[in-house]
Amino acid sequence: MIRTRLTKLFNIEHPIILAPMTPAAGADLSTAVAAAGGLGLLGGGYGDRAWFETESAKITRNDVGCGFITWSVAKQPELLDFAIERHPRAIMLSFADPAPFAKRIKKARVPLICQVHTVDQARRAADVGADVVVAQGTEAGGHGQTARSTLPFVPTVVDALSNYAPDVVVVAAGGIADGRGLAAALMLGAEGALMGSRFWATKEALIHPSAKAKVVAASGDETIRTSVYDIVRQRAWPEGYTGRLLKNEFIAKWHGHEEKLRALQADELEKVEAASRVGDFDVANVTVGESIGMIHDLPAAGDVVRRVVAEAKVRLAKYDRASLE
Amino acid sequence: MIRTRLTKLFNIEHPIILAPMTPAAGADLSTAVAAAGGLGLLGGGYGDRAWFETESAKITRNDVGCGFITWSVAKQPELLDFAIERHPRAIMLSFADPAPFAKRIKKARVPLICQVHTVDQARRAADVGADVVVAQGTEAGGHGQTARSTLPFVPTVVDALSNYAPDVVVVAAGGIADGRGLAAALMLGAEGALMGSRFWATKEALIHPSAKAKVVAASGDETIRTSVYDIVRQRAWPEGYTGRLLKNEFIAKWHGHEEKLRALQADELEKVEAASRVGDFDVANVTVGESIGMIHDLPAAGDVVRRVVAEAKVRLAKYDRASLE
Ligand SMILES: Cc1cc2nc3c(=O)[nH]c(=O)nc-3n(C[C@H](O)[C@H](O)[C@H](O)COP(=O)(O)O)c2cc1C
Ligand SMILES: Cc1cc2nc3c(=O)[nH]c(=O)nc-3n(C[C@H](O)[C@H](O)[C@H](O)COP(=O)(O)O)c2cc1C
Repeated sequence: MIRTRLTKLFNIEHPIILAPMTPAAGADLSTAVAAAGGLGLLGGGYGDRAWFETESAKITRNDVGCGFITWSVAKQPELLDFAIERHPRAIMLSFADPAPFAKRIKKARVPLICQVHTVDQARRAADVGADVVVAQGTEAGGHGQTARSTLPFVPTVVDALSNYAPDVVVVAAGGIADGRGLAAALMLGAEGALMGSRFWATKEALIHPSAKAKVVAASGDETIRTSVYDIVRQRAWPEGYTGRLLKNEFIAKWHGHEEKLRALQADELEKVEAASRVGDFDVANVTVGESIGMIHDLPAAGDVVRRVVAEAKVRLAKYDRASLE
Repeated sequence: MIRTRLTKLFNIEHPIILAPMTPAAGADLSTAVAAAGGLGLLGGGYGDRAWFETESAKITRNDVGCGFITWSVAKQPELLDFAIERHPRAIMLSFADPAPFAKRIKKARVPLICQVHTVDQARRAADVGADVVVAQGTEAGGHGQTARSTLPFVPTVVDALSNYAPDVVVVAAGGIADGRGLAAALMLGAEGALMGSRFWATKEALIHPSAKAKVVAASGDETIRTSVYDIVRQRAWPEGYTGRLLKNEFIAKWHGHEEKLRALQADELEKVEAASRVGDFDVANVTVGESIGMIHDLPAAGDVVRRVVAEAKVRLAKYDRASLE
């Protein structure tokens, strides 16, 4: 057992959180992580209510939380009431100011997790009552910013909150896919790790098998931050946010030519949607981060949890007091 | 003592390398790091022979190495002979293919350190005989690439070389400024840390006091990767390399307007040079990385070495076997 303030806060066995990925983190994946002793979060994403209700209904455990993209919750505030009722274990908000929703979550006594990308955002999250602040580096899969990388960002957030909001628990996200990453996160002062890409590449993730196969074969050098798929899908991401994805033909064609892509958006959207249906990931997006450099298989999510913890323990025990004299 | 393969290779006390920064890492700084039990490297940079000979002549210890920007050594190959003779402790090559110079260094039985930014570069460095591979993440101060961040990059390089070139020692660089970062680097499988920005902010660094004061006051969120100063100084950096710097007025004005800057290069160079002379760092460059978020003082470099090691030991000893049952 690796006991930290995170494991105590949620009374979980392991200091590991499943990122609320859309659509990878459905009922099966979030349930599997919870069953293995981590904190499972159902991916609420952009607030597709039908999808969320369907997956939510499949979850029989009462200890699975969920997460949303903050700026898109604003378009569908009722969804938050549903989430509070169905998933009071924890609600995570990422990307944009959590203030408009924090009060309702806190009032319902649901633990609030906020993902942040700058020191200012970390303080802001503490101000609105976050119980957990997830410090996300730019190596992370999915959306984020370019400003900070996990290794220097996590201790900076720990320091910023240590006097300002000492009860807030800091968790590291971005680039963590094995026990080495978890052990490093703990050394940096984090109380645990939130992992996305590693859980994306598991049996339970709701991802096309061809996309998973591509990721297992890829090197960690092959991801990039870009907005091309947000442009095609007309997602109104706030300034400064891009998505980290596996490079493919679509990105090679359009990254750097965003104006032209905007002009041809409708046509290109059709192509991307058709490609998603048939599993053509030269055109459809594969949303993963740099940590795919350490991903070489597609195990069950519970095995990932156990493996990461076992490996972290070996690393952490390597330097005992005696060896450091 | 933290014993690693790096400390054994160089018979040094601490697994810490001073980055060969230009012009910060002159005789005083490299000597101070060596005296404190780390590996001190004199900053050969772009190969300014007069500067290098002057600083080199001030070094009385025989255990100080040096480092160069690979693509600029090509313009002045004689400098390498001088370095091999004067600084046989270690020679570090960064940025571009080390092959053209590796043979001479290895033939002279001088340990070769190569800084790399992708997994392919790591293998290439091993191919040409590197004894140490420094895996540098994008959070690093100074030049580098955007492809990888330290936390996921280091274990990927360790894995890539573990069978391919098991004798090569992997060191982490980028974002490490305190004992938390060193401890994290060791968890990731690195055998030590190379630090730039932290040593830049010391008494001995050959840096204008106003620049140091700016950095001590800045937050870790305030750096950016850009090419604007390389354009102004007409440095022919290979494709893909940018420099990480503290944001200032000059960068705010020109980043994103590189074509216009090229057109006005001569005028702007004059302004930058004048600003450097008078210590106006709204215009002149302040070259540091994200780790400035953890830099709040300007100690002696030897104190940095001792402090980082002491703090790392506390972290590493936190999880002993018993606490992990
Ligand atoms: C496929 C995918 C989808 C994601 N979707 C979301 C999301 O909807 N909401 C969110 O807060 N974070 C999302 N993230 C980001 C994660 O919360 C987390 O920061 C990231 O996965 C951590 O980096 P890692 O991928 O290296 O583990 C997503 C990540 C991935 C890989
Ligand atoms: C002011 C400054 C100058 C640098 N100059 C060089 C150089 O001439 N050659 C080199 O190999 N690396 C150079 N670097 C990069 C360092 O080798 C190293 O990768 C970096 O400092 C590590 O990140 P950190 O600054 O977060 O410690 C420089 C870094 C800084 C901050």
